[in-house]
Amino acid sequence: MTDLSRRLRVAVAGATGYIGIQCVELLAAHPHVEITRLLARSGAQRRFREVVPGSAVDLPLEAGLDPGAVDVVLAALPHTVAASHAAQWLAVGAAVIDMSADFRLRDAAVYERWYGVEHPAPALCEEAVYALPELNGEALCTADLIAAPGCYATAALLAVKPAVAAGLVEPDIIVDAKSGVSGSGRSPSLGNLFGEVNESLKAYAVEGHRHKAELQQELEAVANAAVRLTFVPHLAPMTRGLLATAYLRPRPGVGHDDLRAVYEELCNAHPCLRLSDGPPPTKSVAGTNLAALHVGWQDGTAVVTCALDNLLKGAGGQGIQALNIRFGFAETAGLPLRCSWP
Amino acid sequence: MTDLSRRLRVAVAGATGYIGIQCVELLAAHPHVEITRLLARSGAQRRFREVVPGSAVDLPLEAGLDPGAVDVVLAALPHTVAASHAAQWLAVGAAVIDMSADFRLRDAAVYERWYGVEHPAPALCEEAVYALPELNGEALCTADLIAAPGCYATAALLAVKPAVAAGLVEPDIIVDAKSGVSGSGRSPSLGNLFGEVNESLKAYAVEGHRHKAELQQELEAVANAAVRLTFVPHLAPMTRGLLATAYLRPRPGVGHDDLRAVYEELCNAHPCLRLSDGPPPTKSVAGTNLAALHVGWQDGTAVVTCALDNLLKGAGGQGIQALNIRFGFAETAGLPLRCSWP
Amino acid sequence: MTDLSRRLRVAVAGATGYIGIQCVELLAAHPHVEITRLLARSGAQRRFREVVPGSAVDLPLEAGLDPGAVDVVLAALPHTVAASHAAQWLAVGAAVIDMSADFRLRDAAVYERWYGVEHPAPALCEEAVYALPELNGEALCTADLIAAPGCYATAALLAVKPAVAAGLVEPDIIVDAKSGVSGSGRSPSLGNLFGEVNESLKAYAVEGHRHKAELQQELEAVANAAVRLTFVPHLAPMTRGLLATAYLRPRPGVGHDDLRAVYEELCNAHPCLRLSDGPPPTKSVAGTNLAALHVGWQDGTAVVTCALDNLLKGAGGQGIQALNIRFGFAETAGLPLRCSWP
Amino acid sequence: MTDLSRRLRVAVAGATGYIGIQCVELLAAHPHVEITRLLARSGAQRRFREVVPGSAVDLPLEAGLDPGAVDVVLAALPHTVAASHAAQWLAVGAAVIDMSADFRLRDAAVYERWYGVEHPAPALCEEAVYALPELNGEALCTADLIAAPGCYATAALLAVKPAVAAGLVEPDIIVDAKSGVSGSGRSPSLGNLFGEVNESLKAYAVEGHRHKAELQQELEAVANAAVRLTFVPHLAPMTRGLLATAYLRPRPGVGHDDLRAVYEELCNAHPCLRLSDGPPPTKSVAGTNLAALHVGWQDGTAVVTCALDNLLKGAGGQGIQALNIRFGFAETAGLPLRCSWP
Repeated sequence: MTDLSRRLRVAVAGATGYIGIQCVELLAAHPHVEITRLLARSGAQRRFREVVPGSAVDLPLEAGLDPGAVDVVLAALPHTVAASHAAQWLAVGAAVIDMSADFRLRDAAVYERWYGVEHPAPALCEEAVYALPELNGEALCTADLIAAPGCYATAALLAVKPAVAAGLVEPDIIVDAKSGVSGSGRSPSLGNLFGEVNESLKAYAVEGHRHKAELQQELEAVANAAVRLTFVPHLAPMTRGLLATAYLRPRPGVGHDDLRAVYEELCNAHPCLRLSDGPPPTKSVAGTNLAALHVGWQDGTAVVTCALDNLLKGAGGQGIQALNIRFGFAETAGLPLRCSWP
Repeated sequence: MTDLSRRLRVAVAGATGYIGIQCVELLAAHPHVEITRLLARSGAQRRFREVVPGSAVDLPLEAGLDPGAVDVVLAALPHTVAASHAAQWLAVGAAVIDMSADFRLRDAAVYERWYGVEHPAPALCEEAVYALPELNGEALCTADLIAAPGCYATAALLAVKPAVAAGLVEPDIIVDAKSGVSGSGRSPSLGNLFGEVNESLKAYAVEGHRHKAELQQELEAVANAAVRLTFVPHLAPMTRGLLATAYLRPRPGVGHDDLRAVYEELCNAHPCLRLSDGPPPTKSVAGTNLAALHVGWQDGTAVVTCALDNLLKGAGGQGIQALNIRFGFAETAGLPLRCSWP
Repeated sequence: MTDLSRRLRVAVAGATGYIGIQCVELLAAHPHVEITRLLARSGAQRRFREVVPGSAVDLPLEAGLDPGAVDVVLAALPHTVAASHAAQWLAVGAAVIDMSADFRLRDAAVYERWYGVEHPAPALCEEAVYALPELNGEALCTADLIAAPGCYATAALLAVKPAVAAGLVEPDIIVDAKSGVSGSGRSPSLGNLFGEVNESLKAYAVEGHRHKAELQQELEAVANAAVRLTFVPHLAPMTRGLLATAYLRPRPGVGHDDLRAVYEELCNAHPCLRLSDGPPPTKSVAGTNLAALHVGWQDGTAVVTCALDNLLKGAGGQGIQALNIRFGFAETAGLPLRCSWP
Repeated sequence: MTDLSRRLRVAVAGATGYIGIQCVELLAAHPHVEITRLLARSGAQRRFREVVPGSAVDLPLEAGLDPGAVDVVLAALPHTVAASHAAQWLAVGAAVIDMSADFRLRDAAVYERWYGVEHPAPALCEEAVYALPELNGEALCTADLIAAPGCYATAALLAVKPAVAAGLVEPDIIVDAKSGVSGSGRSPSLGNLFGEVNESLKAYAVEGHRHKAELQQELEAVANAAVRLTFVPHLAPMTRGLLATAYLRPRPGVGHDDLRAVYEELCNAHPCLRLSDGPPPTKSVAGTNLAALHVGWQDGTAVVTCALDNLLKGAGGQGIQALNIRFGFAETAGLPLRCSWP
C-alpha cells in the first residue's frame, strides 16, 4: 500500500527522447509524484527546459544512469540499456517501469532472435510483467519490473486480443498499422527528416517487424493455440497518432453484435478506452491517453480499428498509467483525457 | 489509324476539379493534342488560369457540356453527369474517356445499388471498356467509350489482379488502402478542410466502399470464381499519393519467387510500372504517371504494395495514357515519368 | 464580487466553429463554470459530441441565439451577429464576451468602412472594453461588454504596443504575421481546403487587412500620435499557431537592453506571457494559452516576435482569461499552460 | 560558342544532397547535357538510384572530388569545399558553377567574418561572377567561375533589387523571408526532423543571417550608397517553397504604378519570371524554375513578394539556367516551367 501523504519519487531515464519528454511533462503536473532526477546522456550539463522547446520544467539533466534514492525508475531508453541497469535499480528498492522492448518478451531467446543482441539480463525476463493496463491490469498491482508495451503493440492488442480471448475469431489475423513519425524517436536520421517523410506514406518491415514477436506472445497466451499473424507497419506524414486496422475472421455463427459487445464491455470498464461510433481519426485522441476503438463489419469480415497517440497511450502515458495502478493512485491521475479539436 | 499530321482535338469536361486540372495541364504540354474547349460549370465566364494557381493555360471556361467539334471528350465529372451526356458526345463522333464511375460497372443494376441512383444510360454500360492500360490494354485500342478506373481501383488491381489472374493466390483477399486528401476533390466540405484532416489518419467506408464493386468485377473476371474481398480505404494527411497494401494467401506450393516473377514480367512489359526493391513511399511516384509495386512476403503471406499519384496514374494521367493507346501515340506521350525528390 | 460558492453559468454562442469548440472544451473542464447552453445554428438538433471529433461534451446544440438564464454569454459568431444580439443579452443581466470584431473598434464609422456593413449597435461600441488582458487588464474587471481581440491583433499588440507605450520606438512599424489555417474557421471554402494550402505559404490582404484598424486604434491610444503601420498577414500550412514578426525602429539612444527590459517586466507580471531566450517556434506554445515573446536586434533594428496558439491565446483561451479576470477567478483558471513537445 | 553537335559533359559534385539530387534529375533529362560523373562522399560505392527514392538515374557515386574530363563542374557542396577545389577544376579546363556561398562574396574578408573560416581561395573571389541570371545575365556569358545565389538571396534580390536599381525606393529595406525545410539540406539534424518542425513556424538568425552579406553587396552595387537592410529568415512547415516579403519605402513622388512598371518590364523580359495578379502562393511555382513576383501597396508602403521553389529557382534549377546561358543553350532548356496544382 502506498503512503499517499508523501509524493512518490520518480527518476526518468532517457528524459530527452520524445517518450522521455512526454513522461517528464506529465509527471511534472502529476498530483502524487515528484521528479527527483532526469537522466539523459545527450543533454547532460544542460537543463531540461533548454533542450525541450516550450517546457517549463527547470531541472538539470544528468549523464549517468544512477537514479539515486527513488521509488520508481521510468525508463525510456534504447533497447539493451534498461536491461543492463534494471537489476541494480531493483536492488536499491526502486520499481522499474520500462518502456523499451527489453522486458516485453518472456523468452530471452526470442528477444535475441529479433534484436540480434544477447539479452543483458535474461533472468529478469520471466519476472517482468507485460503491462497493457486494460488487458493485464491485475498483475500490475504487485509487479516491481513492468514492461510497458509500445505504440504498435498497444493498438494492435487492443484491436485484436479481446476478440481472440473471447474465442470469437479465427487465429488468422492481419493487422495493418500506420504510425506518425515521432514513433521513430528524436535521434536525427534520414528516415525521420521532414523532407523525406512529409507528403508521403510507405510500408516498412514488410518481412516481419520486431513488435510482431510480442503480439504473437500475448495473443497465443489467450488463444491457447498458434496464432497466424501478419503485421505490417506504415509510416504516415504526421507527428503524433497511430492507427491499427485489424482484419478478423469471425468463427462460424459469430455476428457483428457478438463482437461489438465484447469491445463495448471492455471500453465501459476502463477509463482510457472509448468505443467510437465511427472509425476514429487519430487526431480525435491526440494529446490524450485514450485509445478509441471501432468495430466494423464488411461482408462477414470484422474490421476493428484502434487509434491512439503513440507518445501517450502508446508510450509515456501508458507508463504513467501503469505507475498509477501499481501505486494505488487513480488510474488516470495526471493523464490528459480531453482532445481539443482541431 | 490516327492521322498524326494534325493534333487531336480534345475537350475536357469538368476542367476545374483536381482531376480536370491535371488533365488540362498535361494536355497543354502534350505533343499530339490540342485543347479545344474547357467545360466547367463552376468556373464559367472566367479563364482557366484565373481559377488555377500557377497555371499558364489561358483558355476560357464554358458553362455547358457541349464539346463542339472534337475527337475526344475527356470527362472528369461527378457521377451521373457523364452518363447523361455520353450518348450525344458519341453521336457527334467523339471518343469518350470518362474518369468517373459511370461506365466502370458492366451491370447497371450494380451501379444503382452502390450509387443509389438510376443509371442514366444503362445500354452504354456493356459497350464501355474498362481501361486500366496495363491490365486491359488491347481492348482499348478500338474502344469509343472508355471508363478509366480511379485511384483506389488502379492501385488495388495492380497489386492484386496479376496474382489472381495467374492462379497463384486464394480468392480471399484483403486490401488496406491509404489515400491523400486530393482524392476527395476540390469541392469544399468539412471532410477535406486542412484543420480536419491534417495531423490525422482514419479509416472510412469500413462497411463497404463504392469502388469495391468494380474491384470485385475485375477480379472475378480473371478468377473464374467468387472472390471474397475486404477493402478498407483510409484518409492520410497528404495532398497527393495513394498506397494499397494487399494481403494475399498463396496457394499451396506457391513461393515468394513465383509471385514476384509475375509482377516482374508485368512491370518489364509496361512503361508506367516499376518493380521496387523495397516498399515504395508514395512520394517516390508523386508527380509522375508511374505505379510502383513491391512484392513482400511475411511468414507465408504475400504483402503486395502499390504506390501511385492519385491524380496522375490514379486519374488524369491514366485517362491520357488511355487516350495515347487509343489513338496510336506513344503510350507515355505527354506523361511525366520522373520523380524529383524530395 | 463573484459568489464563488456556485458555478458561473455560461452560454456559448457559435459553439461549433473552431473558436467555439475551443471555448466549450475549456469551459467543460473549468473549475468555476457550468455550461448552460450551446447555441449553434449549423449543428442544431444534434449533440456537441456528435459534431466534434474526440469530444466528451454531451450537451445539445440549440438553433437560436437565446442564452436563457446565464451570467455570461461567450460569443464566437460571424461579425454583425453578436452586435445584433448584444443589447438583449445585456438586458437580461448577462455579461457579454465577444470574440468577433463587432465591438473592437470604438468608432462605428471605422467598423463600417472596413466591414462594409452598417454596425447593428453603434451605441454599444463606446461602452465595450477592448480586452487584451495583459495590456488592458484593469478595465476588464468591471466591464459588462468585453471585446476580446483576435489572433493577429493579440500577437501584433503584444509584440509592438509595449515598446510604443514606453516611447522607445518610432511610430513607423512593420508587422509581418503568419497564421495557421484554423484561423480561417471551420466553414468549408476553397481557401481552407487541405489540397489548396498544404505545402504552401502566401501573403494575403496585402492592401490592408481588417485587423489593421484595431491595431492602429490601440497603438495610437498609447502613442498619442499618428502611427504608420504596415501589417501583412500570411497563411502557413499548419493547423494551429500564429507568429507575428515586428520590425521596430528604436528612438535615438535606445538600445537592445532598454527594449528588452520593457518586455521582461511585462512578461514577469503576467502568467500567460513568457519571454523566450530565442525566437519561439509556434509549436512551443500550441495547445496552451501562452504567448511567447522574443526581443531581437539586428544592426539597430529591433525584431520582436510573438508566438501564440491562434485558437487559445488568440481566441477562445483569451475569452476565458477575460472571463476569469472579470469574475474574480484566478487568471489562468481552466487554461492550459503546458506545451507537450513535439 | 558552344559546339551543339555533342552533349556538354557535366560532373555534379555533392550529388546526394537535396540540391545535388535536383541537379542530377534535371541534367538527366536535359537535351544538351551528358552527366559524366557523380561525386558524393556519403553515397560512395552505391548507385544514385539506390540512395534517391524514385530516381531512374542509374549512375555510380564516387567518393573523391575529381571530375575527370568534363566541360562543367556543377558543385552543391558544403561551404569551403568547392573553394578548395575550384582552382584545380578550372585548371583542367572545366567551367565551375558553384551553388554554395564560397564565391558569392567578392571580398574574402567579408566571407571570413560571416563564415568564421579562412577562405580557401581568396584570389578567385574577384574573378567569380555572381549569377542571378535575370539580374546579372550578361556577365554570365563568358564566366568560367560562376557563383549561383541561393534561395533566400534569389527571392530577396528579385523582390528588392529592381526597385533599388531604378532609384524608386529609399535604401532602408526590410525583408521577411519564409523557407521550406528542404532548404536546410538532407543531412539529418534535430532542426530538420519532422517532429521538430511540422505544425510549427519560427524566425531564426534574427541577429543577422549569413546571406545578408551578399544581399547587401548586390544592393549596394546598384544603389551607389549604403543600404540599410533588415533580413529575417523563418522556417515554415513545408518541404519546398520560399517566400520573401519585402517592405519598401518609395521615394517622394513614386507611386504604385511606377514601381509595378519596373517589375512588369523585368518579368516580360525573362522566361523564368512571372508577374502575379495577387500575392503568389509558393505552391504555385513549386516544381518549376519560375519565380513569381507581386507588387503590392499598403498606405504608401510597397510590399513586394517573391515566391519560388528553393531547390529549383533557388538552387539547382538556377545553376542549370546559368549553365544554359553560359553555353548558349536556350535559357530554359531542361527546366520545368509548369506547375501542376495542387
